[in-house]
Amino acid sequence: MKDSATAKSIRVVRLSAQPFAKEEPDEVAVEEPLEIRVENRAVAVVMRTPGHDRELAAGFALTEGIVRSGRDIFEITSCLTTTHPTDQVVNIALADPARFDAAMLSRHVFSSSSCGICGRATIEAAMRQFPPIEAASAVEAKTLLQLPDKLATAQQTFQRTGGLHACAVFDLAGELLLLREDVGRHNALDKLIGHELLANRLPLGNHVLLLSGRVSFEMTQKALAAGIAIIAAISAPSSLAIEFARASNQTLVGFLRGETMNLYAGSERDAR
Amino acid sequence: MKDSATAKSIRVVRLSAQPFAKEEPDEVAVEEPLEIRVENRAVAVVMRTPGHDRELAAGFALTEGIVRSGRDIFEITSCLTTTHPTDQVVNIALADPARFDAAMLSRHVFSSSSCGICGRATIEAAMRQFPPIEAASAVEAKTLLQLPDKLATAQQTFQRTGGLHACAVFDLAGELLLLREDVGRHNALDKLIGHELLANRLPLGNHVLLLSGRVSFEMTQKALAAGIAIIAAISAPSSLAIEFARASNQTLVGFLRGETMNLYAGSERDAR
Repeated sequence: MKDSATAKSIRVVRLSAQPFAKEEPDEVAVEEPLEIRVENRAVAVVMRTPGHDRELAAGFALTEGIVRSGRDIFEITSCLTTTHPTDQVVNIALADPARFDAAMLSRHVFSSSSCGICGRATIEAAMRQFPPIEAASAVEAKTLLQLPDKLATAQQTFQRTGGLHACAVFDLAGELLLLREDVGRHNALDKLIGHELLANRLPLGNHVLLLSGRVSFEMTQKALAAGIAIIAAISAPSSLAIEFARASNQTLVGFLRGETMNLYAGSERDAR
Repeated sequence: MKDSATAKSIRVVRLSAQPFAKEEPDEVAVEEPLEIRVENRAVAVVMRTPGHDRELAAGFALTEGIVRSGRDIFEITSCLTTTHPTDQVVNIALADPARFDAAMLSRHVFSSSSCGICGRATIEAAMRQFPPIEAASAVEAKTLLQLPDKLATAQQTFQRTGGLHACAVFDLAGELLLLREDVGRHNALDKLIGHELLANRLPLGNHVLLLSGRVSFEMTQKALAAGIAIIAAISAPSSLAIEFARASNQTLVGFLRGETMNLYAGSERDAR
């Protein structure tokens, strides 16, 4: 199947409690970094779905207070580099460059990236910071299939407000060890990892991390920082999350619902 | 009903296509900013659910590469200020302060906040940047109830991957004008706003913004930057999103599903 800008075809292993698995094509949402520059100065790197990048940059500039109207923008262009695709960097030229004050920005570049970052470079940079998983821990499919119900039972706040992301860590037998909830999915994972860090229990090489929602690149990166070998999620992973998990030797399971799941990375470890 | 750290009781107006509305208590997820400092230097402000703040700071420090293990942390304390609650700032003292390099951080403070920010200060700061809604546009409840189906029909990529957030803008008669999808909900909204900015169609005072997921503070702030008066969402808003919408004179509808919705802000405009 042909890839589009926003969806990408991959091979996925579908598993269930039944003793069979089949590999088939599936589509995942593409996630790629975009560097936004103002007057050729990098002000942010956002992980986004490719497409409408000029509009993304324009909207970012407005909602961050850099511009007040379309008249404040002279033009928005893509940077050309020799090493990477042209659509990963956009530059906003202002009508009045003298009025731009980078110090007022609310968010800043998340890495010391030079022009022309891409998903591959992002993964390589993360790999230099955190080593790939080495241990070969495994979990049974039937154990994984029980985890969503255990999470739901434990999510008391969620049941009241419907507004919180949750993440939980289980041992390989499926016992819930720790649950954290937060309005921000990154915060929930940081709280869980921070608890284990302060208890001197890292790395979590023999554990399963369960996420209540979707899996972005940043979630797999945070999990690797804690040495988490197995990530399972109720919903879908992004393309970059899958690439990251494969590169870091993490197992990544998505759409863990009812009696089935999709295995996006680590099939040699778990497809049994 | 008594408030807890993570859930907050509010009054909400429940509406349906039927000609009646009732106001009753409900609970929403609390969202408040937390400033994380390392060696007394602010390195991030995260919008989070209060609670487990030391763990959040520790996890943040690990996953951002500031520390490698619990041994790298000397202690984590709350800042005391005279003007704000004590639990909105945490400071990480490192075992070896000389090794801390703030320049390597991937995220930075999102405002020039001094010690002791809180939700109220966050809203006031945003209000100084973007003026409240002045126009009194209104939309009928029966029109709002039709929007989720229109969004779902238009979300072709979502139907393939299950991995994208969507936002769409409708006119007051319920006609879909623009849809944007992204792996990041903030990006989807920035793309939509950027499109309208570049077309010189801001502010969107006579429009409805529909969000596929939850509503955080930052989403209401971005909407205000575009002059959007009416925000509706399929899922729940956070406490700070509700406070922000009320302060900025925005209408905020949540749990827009099936035949009902909850009106969290702007009832004088829409409860009819």
